[in-house]
Amino acid sequence: MSKPISIFDTTLRDGTQGEGISLSADDKLKIAKKLDYLGVHYIEGGIPGSNGKDIEFFKRVMELKLQAKITAFGSTRRKDSLAEHDAGLNKMIEAGVPAATLVGKSWDFHVHTALQTTLEENLAMISDSIAYLKRQGLEVIFDAEHFFDGYKNNPEYALSVLRKAEEAGADWLVMCDTNGGTMPHEVYDIVSALCEVIPGSKLGIHTHNDCELAVANSLSAVRAGVTQIQGTMNGYGERCGNANLCSIIPNLQLKLGYEVLEPDRLKQLTNTARYISEIANVHMPVNQPYVGNAAFAHKGGIHVSAILRDSRTYEHIAPELVGNRQRVLVSELAGQSNILSKAQEMGIEFNPENENTKQVIAKIKELEHQGYQFEGADASLELLLRQANGDMKELFVFESFKMLVEKTADRPVVSEAFVKLKIDGVSVYTAAEGNGPVNALDNALRKALITYYPGLKDMHLSDYKVRVLDDKDATASKVRVLIESQDYHNSWNTVGVSSNVIEASWEALVDSIRYALLGQTKREDYEEIPSAGWGLVNH
Amino acid sequence: MSKPISIFDTTLRDGTQGEGISLSADDKLKIAKKLDYLGVHYIEGGIPGSNGKDIEFFKRVMELKLQAKITAFGSTRRKDSLAEHDAGLNKMIEAGVPAATLVGKSWDFHVHTALQTTLEENLAMISDSIAYLKRQGLEVIFDAEHFFDGYKNNPEYALSVLRKAEEAGADWLVMCDTNGGTMPHEVYDIVSALCEVIPGSKLGIHTHNDCELAVANSLSAVRAGVTQIQGTMNGYGERCGNANLCSIIPNLQLKLGYEVLEPDRLKQLTNTARYISEIANVHMPVNQPYVGNAAFAHKGGIHVSAILRDSRTYEHIAPELVGNRQRVLVSELAGQSNILSKAQEMGIEFNPENENTKQVIAKIKELEHQGYQFEGADASLELLLRQANGDMKELFVFESFKMLVEKTADRPVVSEAFVKLKIDGVSVYTAAEGNGPVNALDNALRKALITYYPGLKDMHLSDYKVRVLDDKDATASKVRVLIESQDYHNSWNTVGVSSNVIEASWEALVDSIRYALLGQTKREDYEEIPSAGWGLVNH
Repeated sequence: MSKPISIFDTTLRDGTQGEGISLSADDKLKIAKKLDYLGVHYIEGGIPGSNGKDIEFFKRVMELKLQAKITAFGSTRRKDSLAEHDAGLNKMIEAGVPAATLVGKSWDFHVHTALQTTLEENLAMISDSIAYLKRQGLEVIFDAEHFFDGYKNNPEYALSVLRKAEEAGADWLVMCDTNGGTMPHEVYDIVSALCEVIPGSKLGIHTHNDCELAVANSLSAVRAGVTQIQGTMNGYGERCGNANLCSIIPNLQLKLGYEVLEPDRLKQLTNTARYISEIANVHMPVNQPYVGNAAFAHKGGIHVSAILRDSRTYEHIAPELVGNRQRVLVSELAGQSNILSKAQEMGIEFNPENENTKQVIAKIKELEHQGYQFEGADASLELLLRQANGDMKELFVFESFKMLVEKTADRPVVSEAFVKLKIDGVSVYTAAEGNGPVNALDNALRKALITYYPGLKDMHLSDYKVRVLDDKDATASKVRVLIESQDYHNSWNTVGVSSNVIEASWEALVDSIRYALLGQTKREDYEEIPSAGWGLVNH
Repeated sequence: MSKPISIFDTTLRDGTQGEGISLSADDKLKIAKKLDYLGVHYIEGGIPGSNGKDIEFFKRVMELKLQAKITAFGSTRRKDSLAEHDAGLNKMIEAGVPAATLVGKSWDFHVHTALQTTLEENLAMISDSIAYLKRQGLEVIFDAEHFFDGYKNNPEYALSVLRKAEEAGADWLVMCDTNGGTMPHEVYDIVSALCEVIPGSKLGIHTHNDCELAVANSLSAVRAGVTQIQGTMNGYGERCGNANLCSIIPNLQLKLGYEVLEPDRLKQLTNTARYISEIANVHMPVNQPYVGNAAFAHKGGIHVSAILRDSRTYEHIAPELVGNRQRVLVSELAGQSNILSKAQEMGIEFNPENENTKQVIAKIKELEHQGYQFEGADASLELLLRQANGDMKELFVFESFKMLVEKTADRPVVSEAFVKLKIDGVSVYTAAEGNGPVNALDNALRKALITYYPGLKDMHLSDYKVRVLDDKDATASKVRVLIESQDYHNSWNTVGVSSNVIEASWEALVDSIRYALLGQTKREDYEEIPSAGWGLVNH
């Protein structure tokens, strides 16, 4: 094992600069607890001077007594003024945290263009601000903004900024690739040069992903000698995002032998990443390295048969090390062995010799031929398999639906749905409006079932995708609808196919509700039996 | 400028292994044309032996006479058999392409575990297969699967694989990091070592993104001496995807000074990446480096004011170099100059000083903000511009539509539409059934108009795409519908956006018909004037 690396998480500060990301104080507290459990060393909570949300967060997070050090972010004092009078610096102190991240300029161009001051005054701003925070007993992490651009333009000045920060008492000197334009070999060369010039300093790295190199740049810096990495979970952040800690941590720990997290905590990585994406309400790309749903998914038939012999053939690590799992995607190219291994994964027993096993495999192949795709619809596949296996009890019988969309010039469009079901032999007929036809159908269907199965209120549709299957015949061609649903603990995917987009949506919708009902019980049993034996499987 | 680098695009082969990606032969042809225009050097089209879709693709793509070399993919011959009898190799030859990509094993572990043969037989399989393809006059690109894992485990054997391939006549030796687990410094060291051992060979690199390092690994290999990079657009591919050419190309060309594409073609990068994501129906992450919608978006107030002084303060390159643009997240800045140059392209005169010019630009920006996208819907844009310019005569007035979908258990679904229009002051009310709701609306709309404009019978909808714009709110979120229409001579694209998929489809449908009617005349004039001056523009 090499020397230990400090992980500095700025999901709650720099991460919230990402487009579409906005976190309440409650959201931030939930994320902080989760990050602390994962074992990161620093959690940057926000900018205490900027808004009420961050002030509330700092007050409440300190009461949680987390292991991680909480840090507050701010800039050097304004030009031509006193640090003691600087509102931003004083807010950082008032936040009551043990550590402060102070950002200062290290690119001469920026001093002139953005700050519009002299190089000397910028050095004084850095020095005064750090000294003031140190006198208040704070650990100071100095973020040298645009360090690499600065070093390339004027190495003496960039270096003098770091020296000045160190003299003033900064505990960490962090080199930032703020614009994300530096190449990994440049990072390595510049950090290596620095380690010779200022030996013994505690150095850190903070990169952005504008060239899709933030992870590589962080690793380059570690190899050249830094011991702190600043980044965000899932790589959230402005423009193309910050360095993604979800990739950096396992790369350092599993590939390069650094001490980063406690080994048992690394298993929390996937769960933590997905939890944070839920809280942030940002869809996690299926192909996200290490923690994505497809990170260890196998599609091709040859790959699958090799994987079944030895998973190292097509997996660079055992997925369990980061809390993820192997998935075999059922696709047209794949045969009976894929389906059976899938059934096993779902805990459904199938004897390959039985007649109903052969029938369900034939049925799945026929459905795939019609355009169904089960690789993105595990829940629909599970329903088919359970049905074939006889351990599926249908809780309602479909009778009919009608769906009406009406639009008159200058008036908003209206969508209404009417659904007729039989539940326990009783006909139930409901009508509902919706924001669009699928929403109207969803509302009418739930209205019918929720009286019987109140647990349905906890689930909702979280994603809806439509794909036209061939374009030979335009509006008469087939469409495939994929629906993702979720409740507090799980998410599941269902599929529907038809030449009619409404019918395809209805199919996927009904599967989603049927799957949710697997783990549900009727109102009369609602209190007594919280789970009906085998609940929802985590997909 | 350093030596030229060959870009080998495998979006159409390895890219389609990505979860949720499935391309028809038509889709593949469209993408191939777009890639060719961008200027990639090789386009790997698929596996000719695998399915009818790929066979059709190879037949039709050769008729396009593209600049790029088309390559077909396949594996070395089966063990203990003759290359001449190998169905896969023969299909590659029958595909009629100038180049073949042949994959072979270079990791001893894989030879034993996956192939279940001897190391010697694997060398013979490689040698025989290459020699056979060379005798047929093909250029042969040899992909050494798992090269880095193989080299780390048994460097002599991995090297002997490359030597054997070269002796047999392979034109390129490509080192694959198939499982995506290799670190950038390892790639650099291994490739550097190889360049000393087999100097003069044409080497390539093929990486996967399992550690979020595929781009960095490709750059490492280039710096160590390779001159071909294999990757996919938007990084599509199995598990975590392949190396993303959309990041690699600008990194090489703009940052490292390599000769890759013609400089004016690099400006097509963003457009090409987005077009392909539309065709593949895969949502492009807003934060995708270089080509994403947020890649040059600025949110923070301080950043924005610095950007306005000098964009280099927070932009690592000028976004225009890759055809992207700066966005300030307060307002959408679609760029008046873009719209005016588009109008000129369509032959519509606009004076930038006129009030109606300003109005139409403001309107387009507002529509883009709502989710309309005119990059793929030139006809809708042209209608807006002609309307603003006053040279657009509306041939009908919309009054209302109703659309009913009805499904009863065990009976086929029924779709009906009712459309009310005013044509020449006369109310026309039609009803029609259809194979799905959009088809029913299309039928009812045409029924109303065709009596007056018989030329409409020559046009039909040729493609229909639906995209969900955000997944925050599932069935209540917005959808964008793109419709492609065509007649004997032309094809054109229109767009509609709404939270209601039926309303969005209706909008795109109406635009499609309005555009078709631009070149049409009424029945009484039908014989006399075959074209009304400016006909349809070919999109």
